[in-house]
Amino acid sequence: MSPSKPRGQYAKGAERREQIIQTATDVFATEGFEGTALKRVAELVGVKEATLFHYFSGKQELLTAVLAERDRRSRDVGGLAEFGLPNLASVAERNEKEPGLTTLYAVASATANDPGHASHGYFQDRYSQLVEELALDIGRRQDAGEVRSDVAAESLARLVIAAFDGLQLQWLYDKRVDMAAGLTELVDVLLVPAKS
Amino acid sequence: MSPSKPRGQYAKGAERREQIIQTATDVFATEGFEGTALKRVAELVGVKEATLFHYFSGKQELLTAVLAERDRRSRDVGGLAEFGLPNLASVAERNEKEPGLTTLYAVASATANDPGHASHGYFQDRYSQLVEELALDIGRRQDAGEVRSDVAAESLARLVIAAFDGLQLQWLYDKRVDMAAGLTELVDVLLVPAKS
Repeated sequence: MSPSKPRGQYAKGAERREQIIQTATDVFATEGFEGTALKRVAELVGVKEATLFHYFSGKQELLTAVLAERDRRSRDVGGLAEFGLPNLASVAERNEKEPGLTTLYAVASATANDPGHASHGYFQDRYSQLVEELALDIGRRQDAGEVRSDVAAESLARLVIAAFDGLQLQWLYDKRVDMAAGLTELVDVLLVPAKS
Repeated sequence: MSPSKPRGQYAKGAERREQIIQTATDVFATEGFEGTALKRVAELVGVKEATLFHYFSGKQELLTAVLAERDRRSRDVGGLAEFGLPNLASVAERNEKEPGLTTLYAVASATANDPGHASHGYFQDRYSQLVEELALDIGRRQDAGEVRSDVAAESLARLVIAAFDGLQLQWLYDKRVDMAAGLTELVDVLLVPAKS
């Protein structure tokens, strides 16, 4: 479709929705997701605050869309085409610079464990996809002799993702916790095969 | 003070408060902490539901007291006098059997990262105490040659606590995740010194 061609209401709505998601992701990164942040998003998009929600089924759907956009951006962090062990420290450093989104992620991932929560399906799919993708990366590195093989790739993937989430939670309580350093020790020391 | 001696209002209040905490911990373990669970606690204690809160500054203080009681009980799990690497798998198994308290912990630990939250101080202290205590245990095992020494005891303690929290979050979304097995692999494989 050429950009100059007239488009229907649906396409315009989808474009506005995408603009809201991008703007909210940027604003939440630094300002958090409560109080005045939504007002600021509305100002930047050029609509009234209540209008933001015309494009979503509710606030939780907007927040989930922002978290999904944050995941998409994570893939570009560190300039790697695929998600794997080498990205982890860079993503942790990015998260330290975006405390609002990091808090949103921590709160939403915990509260959405209730099957009735609007974001439950998103997090359920996210964890199974992340584990699968990271296990694939770890399996390749095990075959290449870069990662120890005495624990299954899927178990290591779960442990690494768990360490990421858990260190991030500790960091939210104590900003002296160095997430990137902890993940680097996990990947570059604990996961390395023993010298024979 | 002899148990038969008449006691003042303060002592009676403290006793009732303790009874509420013990009962709520038992009820929340299986029933969760929302909806009818508080009604059930009130019934078992023999007071009206609203009366429960006379003994606390609000619902969050009651929930925090329950989480602190759960921590105290964790020390008895596995029959060990001190918290350390050998308790982890047993505590994870206990947590799987108490989904209501496990959910309460996950939700409260994430939401209380806001410094204005009533449980913020509790979690901040809890993490620093847990890290300190586990680092002490790990340091002793490093000296004894049971745990690898190429990563500092405090860093390993943070990683282990992070893995615990993170695996538990994954388990809340997928009950097939075996927390105890993951923690056992971490402690009995990844943390073991390389054979020389």
